[in-house]
Amino acid sequence: MANQLIGACLIGQSGGPTSVINASALGCIEAALSEDCITKVYGAAHGIKGVLDDRLFDMSLEDPKELALMKFTPSSVLGTCRYKLADFLVDDSDYKRILDIFTKYDVRYFFYNGGNDSMDTCSKISSFLQLNNYECRVVGIPKTIDNDLAGTDHCPGYGSAAKYIATTCMEIYRDAKVYGTGSVTVLEIMGRNAGWLTAASALATYKGMGPDLIYLPEVPFDLADFIADTKRVYEKDGDVLIAVSEGIKDKDGTYISTYFSDLAKDTDAFGHARMGGLAGSLANFASTKLDAKVRGIEFGLIQRCAAHVGSLTDIEEAYMAGKAALEAAVLGATDQMVAFERAPGPNYKCNAILVDLIDVANVEKKVPKEWINSAGNGLLQAFIDYALPLIQGETELPKEDGLPRFASLKKILTVNE
Amino acid sequence: MANQLIGACLIGQSGGPTSVINASALGCIEAALSEDCITKVYGAAHGIKGVLDDRLFDMSLEDPKELALMKFTPSSVLGTCRYKLADFLVDDSDYKRILDIFTKYDVRYFFYNGGNDSMDTCSKISSFLQLNNYECRVVGIPKTIDNDLAGTDHCPGYGSAAKYIATTCMEIYRDAKVYGTGSVTVLEIMGRNAGWLTAASALATYKGMGPDLIYLPEVPFDLADFIADTKRVYEKDGDVLIAVSEGIKDKDGTYISTYFSDLAKDTDAFGHARMGGLAGSLANFASTKLDAKVRGIEFGLIQRCAAHVGSLTDIEEAYMAGKAALEAAVLGATDQMVAFERAPGPNYKCNAILVDLIDVANVEKKVPKEWINSAGNGLLQAFIDYALPLIQGETELPKEDGLPRFASLKKILTVNE
Repeated sequence: MANQLIGACLIGQSGGPTSVINASALGCIEAALSEDCITKVYGAAHGIKGVLDDRLFDMSLEDPKELALMKFTPSSVLGTCRYKLADFLVDDSDYKRILDIFTKYDVRYFFYNGGNDSMDTCSKISSFLQLNNYECRVVGIPKTIDNDLAGTDHCPGYGSAAKYIATTCMEIYRDAKVYGTGSVTVLEIMGRNAGWLTAASALATYKGMGPDLIYLPEVPFDLADFIADTKRVYEKDGDVLIAVSEGIKDKDGTYISTYFSDLAKDTDAFGHARMGGLAGSLANFASTKLDAKVRGIEFGLIQRCAAHVGSLTDIEEAYMAGKAALEAAVLGATDQMVAFERAPGPNYKCNAILVDLIDVANVEKKVPKEWINSAGNGLLQAFIDYALPLIQGETELPKEDGLPRFASLKKILTVNE
Repeated sequence: MANQLIGACLIGQSGGPTSVINASALGCIEAALSEDCITKVYGAAHGIKGVLDDRLFDMSLEDPKELALMKFTPSSVLGTCRYKLADFLVDDSDYKRILDIFTKYDVRYFFYNGGNDSMDTCSKISSFLQLNNYECRVVGIPKTIDNDLAGTDHCPGYGSAAKYIATTCMEIYRDAKVYGTGSVTVLEIMGRNAGWLTAASALATYKGMGPDLIYLPEVPFDLADFIADTKRVYEKDGDVLIAVSEGIKDKDGTYISTYFSDLAKDTDAFGHARMGGLAGSLANFASTKLDAKVRGIEFGLIQRCAAHVGSLTDIEEAYMAGKAALEAAVLGATDQMVAFERAPGPNYKCNAILVDLIDVANVEKKVPKEWINSAGNGLLQAFIDYALPLIQGETELPKEDGLPRFASLKKILTVNE
């Protein structure tokens, strides 16, 4: 049992929004506010950037009722960032600044809520603090609609995004098939390297109203096969609904989106290729090969913030992850990330466990090949069994004037003396 | 009081999907099934095309429980069409065929559920039947997310689309403003000539989380003004959220989308210009004028079928419209459309009335100029007062496996003897 560590707690949010990132922050903040060994509860404005900029919010000054609404409010209420820390052996200026700020506010508990880039950030900060003999417990709280974090059965944020995608696919299915005059509709769903989100469209197919063809980045994409598949469904059913991951690549690893546009060759700060416009391009390409009305629909960023159709299972698990991180740190955990373990047995149950940050940082978990059909254009029952429990239950987001009542925080900055 | 007319009833659905078109059909079908003077209740497969093709479903053979689910099921369950009847003075072949089919099935009540093109179709069919001394009562049931039908306070379908748009704008607002690094996000919302749907984004602004700038087709659009407006908000707030109608035009009436793409010069069967790609084009254009991260998001067809976030007010009114059409026809009404009248007084109340088809056919109702701000880039309180009551209440759509449980009809065709 570790010694009791007394000091302030700091939580930051990082990376792209999800519907439930605030549920995790709330789980952590509410638990921290009730812990005797925690002297202050800070939120970093825009993640690690807020630390570097000395912009910390005092979370104890918030109205508890507004805080509680964070459970159903999408996208980081504290603000987020995409900021990549250098290797501190190369450049330790950011790390020194972080150490200064942590020392200034006596931060002894640091929680970072994000994806695999964020777990890398956590891990590096913790190493630097240890090298400098600054005692601080660092625990990662997973978050990503992409569901691509290693060491966990699934990620908070995925269930809600999957529920939005499956629901919307069912609605588009109903829309795309009402004219009876023949059509090809291509849906572009997020996911650079892992096809989890696109695979969620198979939940709609499972309910009889989903894509006829589903292409994931896990399977090399071939334009000729795509056209042959599309033609086959078109000739049989008249209307074809297709889901593609933004990150589909050919057998040489070239993004299909780059076939159609030079724009997609851009990369972001992490060296990830930028995506977009693929649905329209593939739909147009299909129209050159078969005489059908075509349409491309990009789900875009709505899929990562559609809290109005959030999964209650996802929301409750996200909250549990934040709470578990705080509780584990108080008991001595550090350099770990909260993860989910699915209990064995016929009924779905999910437990919070801890995994080492170093095993999670910068690793991407993909959809298992054995869950994808042999033609590489659909998902098998094993995926449905995996994903269906994650989308159960409806959000309890309150409404006001018929619209979502999201949290409205005061976000009071600590006074700099 | 008209004579009692005994015979079959036929309902068809036409034009683009809405979240509540089936609620209207259900209101009509359920009322018809309980009327003694109505001998049979038919549904036309794919609207007037199903009449021409002699493809009618016998609605009495459906399971009443599945029928009842139509209330919450988006997009035409009977199938729809975009089929323009010729003027019968020029070519009456379609009309003769319709008369034959009506005679064959003894159709004495005809209900057509659609927008202004559909009301034109209704009106022409009724005139032809009268000229040929075939007694049939023809009543239109309004339906359009566009909300552009004349003679009615608002249209069934608009409230649900408006609720989806406002909800999604609030979620995107939260997403677009979390990085704090400056951005311009352009949202493209449906509406060729009338800005009702785009105006619905102002409901999100009213709740403090909506577009900073809203451009409707009712106001001539000027690229220089657009850039000046965007720059002003960008310099003040850092992140800019902009909603534009797909149909914004310049002072000469040229669609702005045609500035960027030749594709938009295509027209559909009704001579309407096809839209799309405007959000991305405007976002890219903005990026050439100011140094900001830009993004274009097209709401696309999800906005017309997002039943999962349907307005209960809209659903109940849509049902009422279908029921009122049937009841009015039984009492003798013909050549009319059901319309909505807003009762005076502080509390919202909507009554069904009848208006003449001829006054509705092919007329488009636009957003009143006096509801738009003087700069032409936002809506005034009068619009909020108009639209807010229409989005109240949540759909009672049942869920199964965490996903919508839509109606599953048998759609049994009448046997042709």
